[in-house]
Amino acid sequence: MRIKLINPNTTQRMTAAMGECARAVIAPGTEVVAVSPTMGPPSIEGYYDEALATPGLLAEVEAGEREGFDGYVIACFGDPGLYAARELARGPVVGIAEAAMHAASVLAPGFSVVTTLSRTRAMAWHLAERYGMTRFCRNVRAIDVAVLELDEPGSAARRAIVDECRRALEEDGADAIVLGCAGMTSLCAQVEDALGVPVVDGVTAAVKWVEALVALRLTTAKRGDFARPLAKRYDGDFARFSPTNPAPVTETPPPVRPLRYG
Amino acid sequence: MRIKLINPNTTQRMTAAMGECARAVIAPGTEVVAVSPTMGPPSIEGYYDEALATPGLLAEVEAGEREGFDGYVIACFGDPGLYAARELARGPVVGIAEAAMHAASVLAPGFSVVTTLSRTRAMAWHLAERYGMTRFCRNVRAIDVAVLELDEPGSAARRAIVDECRRALEEDGADAIVLGCAGMTSLCAQVEDALGVPVVDGVTAAVKWVEALVALRLTTAKRGDFARPLAKRYDGDFARFSPTNPAPVTETPPPVRPLRYG
Amino acid sequence: MRIKLINPNTTQRMTAAMGECARAVIAPGTEVVAVSPTMGPPSIEGYYDEALATPGLLAEVEAGEREGFDGYVIACFGDPGLYAARELARGPVVGIAEAAMHAASVLAPGFSVVTTLSRTRAMAWHLAERYGMTRFCRNVRAIDVAVLELDEPGSAARRAIVDECRRALEEDGADAIVLGCAGMTSLCAQVEDALGVPVVDGVTAAVKWVEALVALRLTTAKRGDFARPLAKRYDGDFARFSPTNPAPVTETPPPVRPLRYG
Amino acid sequence: MRIKLINPNTTQRMTAAMGECARAVIAPGTEVVAVSPTMGPPSIEGYYDEALATPGLLAEVEAGEREGFDGYVIACFGDPGLYAARELARGPVVGIAEAAMHAASVLAPGFSVVTTLSRTRAMAWHLAERYGMTRFCRNVRAIDVAVLELDEPGSAARRAIVDECRRALEEDGADAIVLGCAGMTSLCAQVEDALGVPVVDGVTAAVKWVEALVALRLTTAKRGDFARPLAKRYDGDFARFSPTNPAPVTETPPPVRPLRYG
Amino acid sequence: MRIKLINPNTTQRMTAAMGECARAVIAPGTEVVAVSPTMGPPSIEGYYDEALATPGLLAEVEAGEREGFDGYVIACFGDPGLYAARELARGPVVGIAEAAMHAASVLAPGFSVVTTLSRTRAMAWHLAERYGMTRFCRNVRAIDVAVLELDEPGSAARRAIVDECRRALEEDGADAIVLGCAGMTSLCAQVEDALGVPVVDGVTAAVKWVEALVALRLTTAKRGDFARPLAKRYDGDFARFSPTNPAPVTETPPPVRPLRYG
Amino acid sequence: MRIKLINPNTTQRMTAAMGECARAVIAPGTEVVAVSPTMGPPSIEGYYDEALATPGLLAEVEAGEREGFDGYVIACFGDPGLYAARELARGPVVGIAEAAMHAASVLAPGFSVVTTLSRTRAMAWHLAERYGMTRFCRNVRAIDVAVLELDEPGSAARRAIVDECRRALEEDGADAIVLGCAGMTSLCAQVEDALGVPVVDGVTAAVKWVEALVALRLTTAKRGDFARPLAKRYDGDFARFSPTNPAPVTETPPPVRPLRYG
Repeated sequence: MRIKLINPNTTQRMTAAMGECARAVIAPGTEVVAVSPTMGPPSIEGYYDEALATPGLLAEVEAGEREGFDGYVIACFGDPGLYAARELARGPVVGIAEAAMHAASVLAPGFSVVTTLSRTRAMAWHLAERYGMTRFCRNVRAIDVAVLELDEPGSAARRAIVDECRRALEEDGADAIVLGCAGMTSLCAQVEDALGVPVVDGVTAAVKWVEALVALRLTTAKRGDFARPLAKRYDGDFARFSPTNPAPVTETPPPVRPLRYG
Repeated sequence: MRIKLINPNTTQRMTAAMGECARAVIAPGTEVVAVSPTMGPPSIEGYYDEALATPGLLAEVEAGEREGFDGYVIACFGDPGLYAARELARGPVVGIAEAAMHAASVLAPGFSVVTTLSRTRAMAWHLAERYGMTRFCRNVRAIDVAVLELDEPGSAARRAIVDECRRALEEDGADAIVLGCAGMTSLCAQVEDALGVPVVDGVTAAVKWVEALVALRLTTAKRGDFARPLAKRYDGDFARFSPTNPAPVTETPPPVRPLRYG
Repeated sequence: MRIKLINPNTTQRMTAAMGECARAVIAPGTEVVAVSPTMGPPSIEGYYDEALATPGLLAEVEAGEREGFDGYVIACFGDPGLYAARELARGPVVGIAEAAMHAASVLAPGFSVVTTLSRTRAMAWHLAERYGMTRFCRNVRAIDVAVLELDEPGSAARRAIVDECRRALEEDGADAIVLGCAGMTSLCAQVEDALGVPVVDGVTAAVKWVEALVALRLTTAKRGDFARPLAKRYDGDFARFSPTNPAPVTETPPPVRPLRYG
Repeated sequence: MRIKLINPNTTQRMTAAMGECARAVIAPGTEVVAVSPTMGPPSIEGYYDEALATPGLLAEVEAGEREGFDGYVIACFGDPGLYAARELARGPVVGIAEAAMHAASVLAPGFSVVTTLSRTRAMAWHLAERYGMTRFCRNVRAIDVAVLELDEPGSAARRAIVDECRRALEEDGADAIVLGCAGMTSLCAQVEDALGVPVVDGVTAAVKWVEALVALRLTTAKRGDFARPLAKRYDGDFARFSPTNPAPVTETPPPVRPLRYG
Repeated sequence: MRIKLINPNTTQRMTAAMGECARAVIAPGTEVVAVSPTMGPPSIEGYYDEALATPGLLAEVEAGEREGFDGYVIACFGDPGLYAARELARGPVVGIAEAAMHAASVLAPGFSVVTTLSRTRAMAWHLAERYGMTRFCRNVRAIDVAVLELDEPGSAARRAIVDECRRALEEDGADAIVLGCAGMTSLCAQVEDALGVPVVDGVTAAVKWVEALVALRLTTAKRGDFARPLAKRYDGDFARFSPTNPAPVTETPPPVRPLRYG
Repeated sequence: MRIKLINPNTTQRMTAAMGECARAVIAPGTEVVAVSPTMGPPSIEGYYDEALATPGLLAEVEAGEREGFDGYVIACFGDPGLYAARELARGPVVGIAEAAMHAASVLAPGFSVVTTLSRTRAMAWHLAERYGMTRFCRNVRAIDVAVLELDEPGSAARRAIVDECRRALEEDGADAIVLGCAGMTSLCAQVEDALGVPVVDGVTAAVKWVEALVALRLTTAKRGDFARPLAKRYDGDFARFSPTNPAPVTETPPPVRPLRYG
């Protein structure tokens, strides 16, 4: 099984770190390819960034269809372009906020999200609502550290995250934590050790969630809202994004998908 | 007062029709400029189309800021890029689904939306939820006519809309209709005449809603989620979209805004 | 276009102040007549006050129908008698809480209401729910100053409002303010200047909202819940309120309504 | 214990019928006095009727406070003036829609309401929401028979109610019925016999609910929203409604309330 | 009328105290029999306790059917086994959380629950949701005193409850209190005296609620979800719980139920 | 990794079938042990059945803790005893309704549940609410075939399921199906083939969901509501269920858990 993990921002060292974390949890027979678009914002910290990250992300999904991928992870906590990606993909597409919230909701009566910037707090609440998770989401908290500072040497991010998580546990009535940024993936284990409650990282959660769905041979419904985009010719610079229907011919025909385990 | 009416698809004849309808309802002293992006889909009929229409739309908003516009209308019933546009704009930005639902909610206990394609029904429900309008929205119905066929000579669209509206009034418990596509603007009066209940067209509703907000000297909150995008350098083809902060210098300084009426 | 602005309490100096604020924002060709009932409470500070203000308010709407008004504003933040008024009126009827919440919801991700008395806080929440605005309403706060003290010379009301608004911005996660009392109308600009975020006054917002709806030739649905009251003879002192159906003959036939602008 | 059962319309034969039904279910030691106002609508079939029924209803509550009543029932399915009445009363005040929905919610997973006129269906839904009962309310149905025709000799009302209830059981997934009009009280037993499922009449349910609360020595919270109206002088014809605070002196001091049973 | 009050835990002194409180509020002609199961947990302080208390509780309901009881109260604030009990019983079955929340919702705009252990707070919220009472429930607070310590001589429970209630009134915007544990029944009057707001004890509220429903001749819907369990043979140790259908023959046929009062 | 799949009813052939389906989808290194309790109902078709299935189910979880299992699946669509099981278990515990709804919610905009008996439809809706999935759940439908008839030779169950699913796709606006009974597991692939939309079986979905969570080293929060039950001595026949705290000593110490893959 091949899963494409798409970091919608262009910062390759984040992409590489996510790929590494993903590969630490996958099952034998699963392959994860981590990519990011060549165009767009280097970090996603608001709606505008999100909107401009989406075309590059969708190009990666469409390429993934040609390349025979079985499923996709959208690895930014705003889950940008999720529904558009589902229109393109045959296999499952899971956002990291979606997967993290689902996971936390089965582990604890309630969780708090700890994210980077205050200005994205309402975005996280909006996602919680979209996925039906408001009843589990006790709070969304921000440490107000920029995404790209998270992994800088000497960054105070880890401590800031742990401190904010502690406040969440004390003040919000939360019993689990959801890390609200793909850039926090590699800090997850350390944070969990410090807190003693479940700490969910969406990147790895989404990879496992996609892996599970593919193993179950489940695919995105191609009837209704997530049907392929209608074929039409786009104008100007975006002509190259013009959707075709059916999906583009796979460049190298994918092998009959072997169910590699079970 | 100058309002920029942005049709996010590239079909100029739709843009022109919207501009005409808008100019029929504005107050003296208001100027409406109707535009569409030069790149992207010629019609928006799904999430993918929406995602690819958004960059062009946002470019128009950013240009509008330089040009000194007082407010913006996003004239596609999916209200694409609404929050991102609010990050860019000083003045109010209103989506046509938002304005139409607000208007219908003060005229009747409940309304039904009549839109073009079935595949966009869930999008309309999602918007109703985002604006708090689910309690007024009795149903979302589709006539399954493509957006660009609406105004074709000899099109059966008008009859199909009227028939579907009649079913809405009989079966949904709705007492008003919201037209669910910017392409239906010019049919609004005819449909209302045929039905005898309020029929709300979002394009004109949004223009008046923006005009009202500007007259009230209200602007988009520049604190919190709708603050200007953080300045950063975007990569690759999208470098030209790199946000600056503060907003770009207005090319020709706008005159001290005269409050032209009242 | 003629709009009747009804202050449901009997305090004429509040009515006059509202009329003045309204006239500062209307378009050329719009006329606003501000009135209050001759009977009922001088201020509305609870459910009982509201119930006793409603008959006088409704008498003003019924008179307005005879006088040929195009639309109505109910200018008390509890929006008393709104649905009953819609049964009487052909044109649009908008409450100031309704208009203010709609406006704030398009300007910011969330707003707080700042009102006069604590005992009316639940009323404001109830309205937020009725209009679908709970998702935008972060908090309802009270300054505990009586309505009629708001504009007393030397009143500390302005400062109390600004202080409470500041707390809302800091503690509630709100990025805009809704003023929760018609008596605060004339303080709106000062409060906004002090805060630097959008501050919405419902009186002017409702006037512009009605003006917009009338310009769009939209009327209240006369099918369903807002149909004219059934004709019947009321008993005792309230015989004079007996509804007739159709609406009473207009005393002087209104001119064919000229669409004065656009 | 003395309970005042207030029919807010002026039709005495309905009042008398309600009183009779109430007296068939009360406990020894409970006295029910059924009254209606001397002014206002003879039947309540919309928001306007409701608004004009409320002052007379509130006068009965205020009189009841002087007369030493222990609790009140508001016997119209729209529960008009409920919160205003709670401001006036020391003891519990219960609406018949409120009591009927509470009762039905403990007897069945879901109920449907069967009411008189279609135009009041949204009112019933609004009440269901206000009381938190939407999750139990499967549907609100109308037989479109006017309130005052319900008990006319030879009226087809009983059969129309039974037929509509049958449709509710078959089509709505309801397993109990709430009768949506005080005028249906005397038909309740017959309807239940015909259907074989619980049929709840709000008039008797509310009387028992108030009786229970008084026996528990529970009273309306006089802190917060339901505190006595603030004392003020009302203007014009409504001067006689001017609230005093504290409540008016009881004309004949009520005896120390004996707990007559238990 | 005979009501079976079932304390689902095995602590007889709590059962006796509840029976005594119940008997202080019932009407003449009502008999309350208070029982507890012979097997299961001595106190219910979590989901596991609740699950193991339920079989014994259900055995008491099934026995009650043979013994001709008219209705049942489940006297633990988690309302364990409520729906299963309704499948067994012909008459009404009311939980004490359900009754207390209904009662508080008609007495005040909002209430807070004060319960024993923090770990049961989410249980109380879940019940509030199940009964539609979240809109009235301002908070759920815990004093962190074990259930069986509540009535120990010299226990600080009463003071802890009063203190927590005071905080609820000050901080939660609540104007009434719901006691969140059946073991608090006998403290109810003292707490109310100390606070001056309505304090609702679920045990007595539920007894009166059942008494009211039985007097109204209302029974549990035996159509749909609360129909008798399907007859089947259970395995192993639980064979004795095998449900029969119809209900077991009543050991001594109950007399034609006299309506003993009214 | 070792997962205990607990069928809460006592019908061994169902348990065996579930185990087989589970083993077809697990990853190398995962072991699934399928069990059912020795006491309780042979099928679960209502709340009473559910209540009596729960003690046996919980005994299996507690035994599982001693045996060193890493996670648990509760394999009945009512997810009985889920929260109580979470109190007992260190590792994740997932219900099949929970897993199936989560999975369907990422594959399609909406799903319908197709279950066995009409009387369990409200149970499924209640679960959808508990998991936040009402926004995705379009309908719950029943085929009215008893659980134990599902796999009888010559049973018409498969055809009845397919027919009902077809109606769901046509009438409900659903684009995916959730099978609402653990007994339907082995029919899943056939149903999906017949329909051409995603059909989710909860048993296999839950197994993969637990497998994913264990691979992520995530465990149930042992703080708050899902903390171990408080140690206490249960009475009578249920003394053997008395909870201890900490969890009972594992009989044979589990090996240091090897992360067998990745």
